[in-house]
Amino acid sequence: MQIPPELNTSQRILLGPGPSNVHPRVLRAMAQPLVGHLDPEFVAIMDEVRGMLRAVMRTSNEMTFAISAPGSAGMEAALVNLLEPGDEALICIHGVFGGRMADIAERCDARVTRVEAEWGHPIDPDDVKKALANLRPKLVAIVHAETSTGVRQPLEEISRMAREAGALFVVDAVTSLGGIDVRTDEWGIDVLYSGTQKCLSAPPGLSPITFSERALEAVSKRRTKVRSWFLDVSLLRNYWSGGQRAYHHTAPVSMAFALREALRIVLEEGLEARFARHQKNHQILRDALAELGFSFLVDREFRLPELNAVLVPAGIDEAAVRRRLLDVYDIEVGGGLGPLAGKIWRIGLMGESSSLNNINALTGALRTILG
Amino acid sequence: MQIPPELNTSQRILLGPGPSNVHPRVLRAMAQPLVGHLDPEFVAIMDEVRGMLRAVMRTSNEMTFAISAPGSAGMEAALVNLLEPGDEALICIHGVFGGRMADIAERCDARVTRVEAEWGHPIDPDDVKKALANLRPKLVAIVHAETSTGVRQPLEEISRMAREAGALFVVDAVTSLGGIDVRTDEWGIDVLYSGTQKCLSAPPGLSPITFSERALEAVSKRRTKVRSWFLDVSLLRNYWSGGQRAYHHTAPVSMAFALREALRIVLEEGLEARFARHQKNHQILRDALAELGFSFLVDREFRLPELNAVLVPAGIDEAAVRRRLLDVYDIEVGGGLGPLAGKIWRIGLMGESSSLNNINALTGALRTILG
Repeated sequence: MQIPPELNTSQRILLGPGPSNVHPRVLRAMAQPLVGHLDPEFVAIMDEVRGMLRAVMRTSNEMTFAISAPGSAGMEAALVNLLEPGDEALICIHGVFGGRMADIAERCDARVTRVEAEWGHPIDPDDVKKALANLRPKLVAIVHAETSTGVRQPLEEISRMAREAGALFVVDAVTSLGGIDVRTDEWGIDVLYSGTQKCLSAPPGLSPITFSERALEAVSKRRTKVRSWFLDVSLLRNYWSGGQRAYHHTAPVSMAFALREALRIVLEEGLEARFARHQKNHQILRDALAELGFSFLVDREFRLPELNAVLVPAGIDEAAVRRRLLDVYDIEVGGGLGPLAGKIWRIGLMGESSSLNNINALTGALRTILG
Repeated sequence: MQIPPELNTSQRILLGPGPSNVHPRVLRAMAQPLVGHLDPEFVAIMDEVRGMLRAVMRTSNEMTFAISAPGSAGMEAALVNLLEPGDEALICIHGVFGGRMADIAERCDARVTRVEAEWGHPIDPDDVKKALANLRPKLVAIVHAETSTGVRQPLEEISRMAREAGALFVVDAVTSLGGIDVRTDEWGIDVLYSGTQKCLSAPPGLSPITFSERALEAVSKRRTKVRSWFLDVSLLRNYWSGGQRAYHHTAPVSMAFALREALRIVLEEGLEARFARHQKNHQILRDALAELGFSFLVDREFRLPELNAVLVPAGIDEAAVRRRLLDVYDIEVGGGLGPLAGKIWRIGLMGESSSLNNINALTGALRTILG
């Protein structure tokens, strides 16, 4: 066959829904020659990654680690470990990713009750309250930062309701972790998972996840085996923790190097400073986009600073403009998903991508294209 | 918290059961700044990877791609897509990985019939024949290169039997692909999966996989949804192929860059030349190890050139010697698994790791330590 030529990609400014741009330090760490996945040096790296993830997730959970696959596998890991056939699950849906949770829970043969909000709005805690009046679910699951709509979902009130109903509280923090505050323990979250390619600014391929003791106890009380061998936390526990590491699968060594370096950068900046940077840059982008005629899908109170869902002004061929941004300016912004396709853009200012220069590049390009 | 220092790993010679050493070209490609996973440039890269995988797997299957997780997720993808509750599965077990297949098939609630061989020996086709006399299984699954024992399993006769019994034929080629011949189409294989970190010499993190049309037809005839959303090939199909790529998960972009470069290197060398190199180096290692008192677990006819399972001479503290190899010489060799723990070493000569210099480094170190 014809062997393809040397890799030769464009230098993109990544302002879509992820991946975000990756710091050269992370790329360099990733390109370090490999050590074996059971090498004592790699075991130490796993422990360092776990320690830094605990700091970023604000948890003291022992079972904090990274699933060896992207964020959607983290979602599957959370649900497939907790749910057995016939279990009740209350799934909150205000965008694509809540819907995906329900799909996965149904594949676990759980009985799913849906609480929904219109896309662009957060879930109303009163609706959760009503649903819980007639239900004692094993878990309540919700998306903290809905990547399809740009909504920040307040969690504390719903967490309290879940706890009072005797349910475990599962949170998707794929697009929030490292960009806005995520307080796993303080907010009573039992399982929280994320991705590496959003506000942590590592390449995609791992899913940081944490299980509370309550969640692990629920896993240990299962009557049936976890349906996924690859994601079974009772097996992963012996690979990621304890004195003698038991072989399970082969962890993505280079990705772990990358995540380690990305987490170092997050902690060097400091969580509060990082959240403030995301918030400040969001406000600068918001003002610049307002001048260009874009308005926000989401009410101010619930906007994610790292994912700006904006309505494209009437009369603009949004797909053509996005293509021009990519082809001429090397700038990626995201289109809408599902019912929002063709109507909104999703402009990510995540991790390394959240910078003044990137905002100026985008708004400058838009002024030229639209002006 | 105390932020860990800069990554600073040792320069290992990786002669264990994987990962193998990675060529600097692959590390460099992996460290290329990212493009978005739906970027037209990345879609082109996906297509190039698929084309090269078809060449290496010797298949014309359209649905040839890479699962976004390591080889054991490829195993789960093969089985979870094909098996529904109550389906019959004939699983051949001659080591750890056949046993893992049976575990996963049982988690699919399939009815599993096991055909076993003593560890260190291949499955006897006559035993498969006997099992098939009373069974019409949906699939027959077997490991081509058993990483726990170093056995090369001949496939053609068992493939014919599976076909005659109306079963799909599923093959684990994690440790064979790129090191010994794998003829997916000619050998009548319906689903074949591999890993990147063995004879392909890319970092771990992806699982190349191929589905025949017969296999995809079986998936389309399922009465129930595939239990894993993340591994559902009917969803992955729309992400990896066709004109309009539908968002599913976020592919590990950097790992795809790495795999692309690793496959280019495999095809530049040429499959036949690569197999010959693995075979020649195996023979050189074999002769050197014989002088040191090591003998092979596996009969000559069934030895894998890329994974040398050798009995450690009596009187040697094998764990201490392996530790000394690692600490003093930066050489990793693998210990035994399960019943072979403490008895054998698994010396990998996979991909980039299969070189004269590596053999001389290992045997020289062993002469000093043991002499």
